[in-house]
Amino acid sequence: MMAGTLSIVGVGPGDPELMTLRAARLIGSAPVVAYFCRENHPSQARTIAQAHIAPTTEELRLVYPFTTEISVNDPAYHQNMAAFYNQSADRLAEVLASGRDVTLLCEGDPFLYGSAMYVFDRLRKHWNTQVVPGIMAMNGCWSQAQAPMTHGDDVLCVLPATLPEDELADWLKRADAAVVMKIGRNMPHVRKAISQSGRMEDAVYVERGTQGGQVIAPLAEREGTAPYFSLVLLPGRKGVR
Amino acid sequence: MMAGTLSIVGVGPGDPELMTLRAARLIGSAPVVAYFCRENHPSQARTIAQAHIAPTTEELRLVYPFTTEISVNDPAYHQNMAAFYNQSADRLAEVLASGRDVTLLCEGDPFLYGSAMYVFDRLRKHWNTQVVPGIMAMNGCWSQAQAPMTHGDDVLCVLPATLPEDELADWLKRADAAVVMKIGRNMPHVRKAISQSGRMEDAVYVERGTQGGQVIAPLAEREGTAPYFSLVLLPGRKGVR
Repeated sequence: MMAGTLSIVGVGPGDPELMTLRAARLIGSAPVVAYFCRENHPSQARTIAQAHIAPTTEELRLVYPFTTEISVNDPAYHQNMAAFYNQSADRLAEVLASGRDVTLLCEGDPFLYGSAMYVFDRLRKHWNTQVVPGIMAMNGCWSQAQAPMTHGDDVLCVLPATLPEDELADWLKRADAAVVMKIGRNMPHVRKAISQSGRMEDAVYVERGTQGGQVIAPLAEREGTAPYFSLVLLPGRKGVR
Repeated sequence: MMAGTLSIVGVGPGDPELMTLRAARLIGSAPVVAYFCRENHPSQARTIAQAHIAPTTEELRLVYPFTTEISVNDPAYHQNMAAFYNQSADRLAEVLASGRDVTLLCEGDPFLYGSAMYVFDRLRKHWNTQVVPGIMAMNGCWSQAQAPMTHGDDVLCVLPATLPEDELADWLKRADAAVVMKIGRNMPHVRKAISQSGRMEDAVYVERGTQGGQVIAPLAEREGTAPYFSLVLLPGRKGVR
């Protein structure tokens, strides 16, 4: 019996119409669709892909063991996550061994900060894999904000909000264009880092970009915390005008 | 009479199936499709979109006045390009003023190093505009190369190959993950900068990613120059494994 193929498919930033034609085809034709989710919560990736999932498709839920209960600074976090990715990889391998293809859904692009990379790293040596890129949150957000990002020889830096404040400020001073991702509870120090870099005036805050309840506003006008699905755009400064 | 809307639409990195559902819809329903191209050459963006362009659709070719005849270091280059973007914006505005919508096709994503940004900058204040993100060359390439890019709190830097060698090497030393774009004739100094940064071993060269004639190889094994549609991937170094 031929083993199945694992297709790791980006479903884009939230708006279902921002999925690629290939993603829609591979979701529609998959005997098994898999996705990461939190216990008792719908998967965001599945919600985006929903219209393309056939009624006969089997669904494999890969349920995170926790999300916010343990700090990422606690070694137990990484041990637990590694065990979870091992177990998820085993469950996917079981389906592939039975000869069925699996389409693993990912928000945004699978290879930019995606959970799917960790199962891919575990499965790539032993199984057939293909990867379908997706529109990333940042592209969706800068399109909605109508903010052109890089002209000429601008450098773009993609920065996780989890970096320490001084490190973040240092990157922001060097970069021409920048995107600060995964803001959430890091909003207070992101705000300080952007002030420290002298770029508050140009900073655009986008919350739930391309999704229902989208917010686009100058960062200078926002107070308090932010949801996880939020980012800050700093358009580039150079180029022919 | 209502003015038309300018839709600036990313068609993705080359493989026509890596276009979004929205891009396909807006191309198929457009009374006028516009694109940049070189004289006597087909437009790459149009070739990608071809299957979706209706026979009745009017096509507006925006023909670059030159491409490689004048050095980008010559002030005449920028003057000529500014005049070309002014003229292109005027031609698009004429169609919009007649009440018709225009879909302007862009390779990759419109707001990452796209010519469309320059006409957008000229038209955004006076006309209705919308922007549809596209899969960027780098996403297409890292998916094809099966190279996961950023884990955990990795920083990703997107670097034009046109930067001076020392500046490029400095960025490569700081970045966790990096993409060097628009290689072409800059290959020799890109190679030197990557050697200087000590990262040659991890550098993946991708030529014509997702297109016919795709090449994926360790950069260390490549000699000589490269076509414009080529880039180098440096996957990130951190993260949970």
